[in-house]
Amino acid sequence: MSNESVNSAARAHCGFRARLSAMLIVMSAHATPEDVERVCKRIEELGFKAHAMPGANRTAIGLTGNPGPVEPGFFEDLPGVAELIPVTHPYKLVSRELKPDNTEIRIRDVVIGGPEVVVMAGPCAVESEEQTIRIAEKVRAAGAHLLRGGAFKPRTSPYSFQGLGLQGLKILAKAREETGLPVVTEAVDGESMELVEKYADIIQLGARNMQNYALLKQAGKARKPVVLKRGMSATLEEFFLAAEYIMSEGNYQVIMCERGIRTFADHTRNTLDLSIVPAVKRISHLPIIVDPSHGTGKRHKVAPMSRASVAVGADGLIIEVHDQPEKALSDGPQALLPEAFESLMEELRQLAPVVRRTITTSCKSPVGTSSGAHSPAR
Amino acid sequence: MSNESVNSAARAHCGFRARLSAMLIVMSAHATPEDVERVCKRIEELGFKAHAMPGANRTAIGLTGNPGPVEPGFFEDLPGVAELIPVTHPYKLVSRELKPDNTEIRIRDVVIGGPEVVVMAGPCAVESEEQTIRIAEKVRAAGAHLLRGGAFKPRTSPYSFQGLGLQGLKILAKAREETGLPVVTEAVDGESMELVEKYADIIQLGARNMQNYALLKQAGKARKPVVLKRGMSATLEEFFLAAEYIMSEGNYQVIMCERGIRTFADHTRNTLDLSIVPAVKRISHLPIIVDPSHGTGKRHKVAPMSRASVAVGADGLIIEVHDQPEKALSDGPQALLPEAFESLMEELRQLAPVVRRTITTSCKSPVGTSSGAHSPAR
Amino acid sequence: MSNESVNSAARAHCGFRARLSAMLIVMSAHATPEDVERVCKRIEELGFKAHAMPGANRTAIGLTGNPGPVEPGFFEDLPGVAELIPVTHPYKLVSRELKPDNTEIRIRDVVIGGPEVVVMAGPCAVESEEQTIRIAEKVRAAGAHLLRGGAFKPRTSPYSFQGLGLQGLKILAKAREETGLPVVTEAVDGESMELVEKYADIIQLGARNMQNYALLKQAGKARKPVVLKRGMSATLEEFFLAAEYIMSEGNYQVIMCERGIRTFADHTRNTLDLSIVPAVKRISHLPIIVDPSHGTGKRHKVAPMSRASVAVGADGLIIEVHDQPEKALSDGPQALLPEAFESLMEELRQLAPVVRRTITTSCKSPVGTSSGAHSPAR
Amino acid sequence: MSNESVNSAARAHCGFRARLSAMLIVMSAHATPEDVERVCKRIEELGFKAHAMPGANRTAIGLTGNPGPVEPGFFEDLPGVAELIPVTHPYKLVSRELKPDNTEIRIRDVVIGGPEVVVMAGPCAVESEEQTIRIAEKVRAAGAHLLRGGAFKPRTSPYSFQGLGLQGLKILAKAREETGLPVVTEAVDGESMELVEKYADIIQLGARNMQNYALLKQAGKARKPVVLKRGMSATLEEFFLAAEYIMSEGNYQVIMCERGIRTFADHTRNTLDLSIVPAVKRISHLPIIVDPSHGTGKRHKVAPMSRASVAVGADGLIIEVHDQPEKALSDGPQALLPEAFESLMEELRQLAPVVRRTITTSCKSPVGTSSGAHSPAR
Repeated sequence: MSNESVNSAARAHCGFRARLSAMLIVMSAHATPEDVERVCKRIEELGFKAHAMPGANRTAIGLTGNPGPVEPGFFEDLPGVAELIPVTHPYKLVSRELKPDNTEIRIRDVVIGGPEVVVMAGPCAVESEEQTIRIAEKVRAAGAHLLRGGAFKPRTSPYSFQGLGLQGLKILAKAREETGLPVVTEAVDGESMELVEKYADIIQLGARNMQNYALLKQAGKARKPVVLKRGMSATLEEFFLAAEYIMSEGNYQVIMCERGIRTFADHTRNTLDLSIVPAVKRISHLPIIVDPSHGTGKRHKVAPMSRASVAVGADGLIIEVHDQPEKALSDGPQALLPEAFESLMEELRQLAPVVRRTITTSCKSPVGTSSGAHSPAR
Repeated sequence: MSNESVNSAARAHCGFRARLSAMLIVMSAHATPEDVERVCKRIEELGFKAHAMPGANRTAIGLTGNPGPVEPGFFEDLPGVAELIPVTHPYKLVSRELKPDNTEIRIRDVVIGGPEVVVMAGPCAVESEEQTIRIAEKVRAAGAHLLRGGAFKPRTSPYSFQGLGLQGLKILAKAREETGLPVVTEAVDGESMELVEKYADIIQLGARNMQNYALLKQAGKARKPVVLKRGMSATLEEFFLAAEYIMSEGNYQVIMCERGIRTFADHTRNTLDLSIVPAVKRISHLPIIVDPSHGTGKRHKVAPMSRASVAVGADGLIIEVHDQPEKALSDGPQALLPEAFESLMEELRQLAPVVRRTITTSCKSPVGTSSGAHSPAR
Repeated sequence: MSNESVNSAARAHCGFRARLSAMLIVMSAHATPEDVERVCKRIEELGFKAHAMPGANRTAIGLTGNPGPVEPGFFEDLPGVAELIPVTHPYKLVSRELKPDNTEIRIRDVVIGGPEVVVMAGPCAVESEEQTIRIAEKVRAAGAHLLRGGAFKPRTSPYSFQGLGLQGLKILAKAREETGLPVVTEAVDGESMELVEKYADIIQLGARNMQNYALLKQAGKARKPVVLKRGMSATLEEFFLAAEYIMSEGNYQVIMCERGIRTFADHTRNTLDLSIVPAVKRISHLPIIVDPSHGTGKRHKVAPMSRASVAVGADGLIIEVHDQPEKALSDGPQALLPEAFESLMEELRQLAPVVRRTITTSCKSPVGTSSGAHSPAR
Repeated sequence: MSNESVNSAARAHCGFRARLSAMLIVMSAHATPEDVERVCKRIEELGFKAHAMPGANRTAIGLTGNPGPVEPGFFEDLPGVAELIPVTHPYKLVSRELKPDNTEIRIRDVVIGGPEVVVMAGPCAVESEEQTIRIAEKVRAAGAHLLRGGAFKPRTSPYSFQGLGLQGLKILAKAREETGLPVVTEAVDGESMELVEKYADIIQLGARNMQNYALLKQAGKARKPVVLKRGMSATLEEFFLAAEYIMSEGNYQVIMCERGIRTFADHTRNTLDLSIVPAVKRISHLPIIVDPSHGTGKRHKVAPMSRASVAVGADGLIIEVHDQPEKALSDGPQALLPEAFESLMEELRQLAPVVRRTITTSCKSPVGTSSGAHSPAR
């Protein structure tokens, strides 16, 4: 980099908004795989990164890593190139400009971002094998598609329980074996990320880590889909840029997740901002789910806000379910009881068709037969 | 008032939260109207105000105007008195403690707060008779139950158009005559309140006036139902207390309205806080509707947020509809086009049964026949 | 107004931001009073309002009431006209574009907006004559320039003490007679405004009324200066437009007042946004004061935030002072004790010169001699 | 841990607020070092961590790592133990309950948290050796005590310049050698933390990483003081708990830093919440500084907010200074010009004594003589 360009790039961080000169290369409908490859090769020869994203009709190739303008002449004469589009937003890989069709993310038999509204449910934290499997079976019976449960917990206080860690992951894997439900669980740092990638089916990144760029980049190198929770005070652009971080490292399987923002309002723990669902879907091809448990912090608001989430167009929900009301009732926690979760699923199944979505039952195969393939420990 | 009680009451405003010693008198199921009247009389003899609120099974009588504790002995021996309940919240008339059953507010054939989800639609501002009636007919045909439209506009700038005023009200009355749709429109001050009460079917109070106590009190003396919009930074308690202001003057027909709060988020003009719908309904018997037009400020978010509002349990919607896309498209306004509104109504009709609600077509009678009775000008 | 212009003006309220085509007419340094008068007359002949604002070197004339562009040809050939400046902000009378020099507002011997940092102090609410005068004497002795105290209180709850009203105003007038301190007190509605204008020296408008446009316009017709508190979720532009409302009715004596905004932060009741002080002074010629009592809600933060207010460039402070700690200590109120206020004044007097301001002692004349002229009761 | 205690600890994360049963052991004034050691040993025998914090008169010992109540009998009979205090806040090491006296942090000749107001100044990002040293000399001449400058930059966009990294650190070390100014610079992840600890004098943690617990713990193991910036939507309690994370790992040299919170207000990039300064100092013994550059995002608000920060009681400032106005002027960045910084320092020197603080000139020794000892490269 020349001294001048370092200088101007450096200044871009000091009160200036980033101004990118990015580019999309849209291939013609008749472009061959060789054409696509040739363009990607040229991009890499120039020292940048190429991101080919095949669409229903044609492939778009995103070009990242360019701090300044790229000379169009490098590409416009290559065979199969239809159009060069300068990118106007600071993000590109997340954008429908690059990939007009919805991204569908497959986890075993479950597809997130397609017609199905996908429900992830389970306890806040993995407490014991017995308890986790018991709840997993209940949420599966009610129709959940994935099992959620925290093995690593981001703790506001250093003195709080930090989760069962590896032991918790093993319990989750066991619960998957028993119920057939794929597992989503949170990674909180580099170490836990490696373990979560190994044991779980989806890696969850929490709101506090939405701008933990080292962790985002590590998630971008993982081979598992990522649920990315919106930061408590993140704008839509920052939310997209966090996803862009993951995607720019090569992991295109990002599931956005609204979980409430911080406002003055005190009737809920956070203010669930459902309008971000159509906002994300309008600009991006990525799926978005909603977490009404953390989003409200109050059990009796989870069901209505879950219905609202499906009605607004969310691709899924992630819900805390707890089966020991007598121990949990003392302080108004946010977890639904299994029966309440069952009723909610019934309501959601009726609601989904109104918004041209479906909610099918998660797995029809008898429990425990086909799930061995997921056990990463073997 | 004794000097001491003035002093302590005065201090209640200077950094202290109001601490009320309020009371509800619950009458037995067998209490006669005379019993109720006797209790009310006693309350008034003591210098307070009585608010009798008949319920499905028994009548509760709220006692307001007491700055300090009231001696229970004054009431507990009166015939028909079942229970004396000290009120724990700063509000009482809005509370389900006083009135467990939902309040249903009837405007002609429309009932707000019952099984029906009620839709109010129309232009932001009344521009001309021809335009208002044209849009009114379109929203009626699509199934709206009431006509909305601003005759008096609260203007952030003193130099902006302030609405057609009385002329606008007359146009709205004319539109009601033509279409049979009852009219909801905003009052912005004492003068406009008198006119709105005379011409409209529902008086709307805007977010900026949610703590305009003089106006709230005037609305409390009006004989028409009131739509009370939540202030841009109002907590649930403040929202309830604003309703309490209206009710404490004797007007119990208050319809709460969520219209978005002010946050850092910039993908919508305001952040529509749908979780307040179940929060209001849990604590209060009053109906609550949602305004997704001001709540998002963006046309393409109105339909999804309307669906979400019905799904979360709102009793109604108030939506801006505009029929001149070629003039309105330039700056991303928030009004729906009539066709989009029609599709939305269709979706909402399918959605309502899922939450055990209905949306029927507004009026089956031929237009213009029975509406003469509403013309206040005669 | 033509139908077309009504239509476009009407639409300006429905999701569009107001776009004004305003104009300033700057007179040359040699323009005579007759020149100025001639321009004003021409403006009024055209159906608009003229606002002549004399500056140190030349007079600027604001033109308001024009919903569309004004033909420059109407003015540019009139004698004495130096320049026609289109106004780019939605506000104009508040702007330094119109009036580059600071506005100084004189109340008796006190000047707000000049080199002096002006301190208004007193009880939150007027409780009794004896108490008010006692506190007034204490704050005067400590160096306060004006007496604050609420006679009319905006009450979040309808059941709370609403102030002593007219009796409270009379007590304040009496306290002024005794101490020589001019009085600032709040008006909450049309009725109280008339009384406050009659009895007080400065009319205070509270945060909840910052967008009560009827009240702003009434304040604009009053002959007394107005302290305008920022609304709890008001942007800088909305704050200016509220001031513009008052000024556009002819009252140019507006004192802006920061009193805290509503955020998620919970260590103070509101978040005092001191950065608005340089923001206001950069754009506007109006003075701005700070209310650290309501702005923090906590007694022990009043002194540090008062010092910060002076250091940031505020033209004054409005502070609650209470002299009965034994009664007030129970619930952490926000009022300073008289001794703490005295220490604070001492600190402020040392601090002021650092920012090239002064804080002199309020009145040197013996108490009670010259204050008769203020008694409005005659 | 028993199954039951795991269960209850696990639940503490799922909608419950952490409720800690912590304890402080206050030693008598006559306790010997052996007494202190004995208590610490007993604590560790019980499986917990001991944190001895010597005060002016007596030593307090914090006990962390206990998920449940600790039996007082274990300690109360040990020699030298004066008092056992249950801790009521979720934090303890940060609290004045544990350590009543202000913590003073020494970096070479500079002491943060003492009577001196310490100013850290320099460019936002390290651009080149020549530029960094040039600016370092200017801020040193103006009286800055430390040099700030980013070598690792947390970037909202993955495509933005991420700083010069190790090369930047070496430039900062060179600038320290030349000017004698100790260096504060940001660490953004585990890798950069190691390098920053090696090269810099103070490790800065950014707002986005305030709840990056892995990084906080790593900082807790570092041997250099840490500047901890408040998260954009962090409450005071969360801010303290982030500091507690660092301290609970053994690094007690934490400097809190207010840098603005996210609100609806749009006249500044963030809303600088100065009231947190007295709030932090009231509860905690840790020093707190203010960053008016990021806190406002606007150059012309930096000086007034810096003055306000000193007036409110801040222990220091961290300010961006830039010396190439012709390149930086285009987009209103937040860096002060060197001359403006010089004037500001002059104002602050006058202001400090008013709040019983001082601002002395940073180093009197000729440049370059004594700084060799800091070069970590040897």
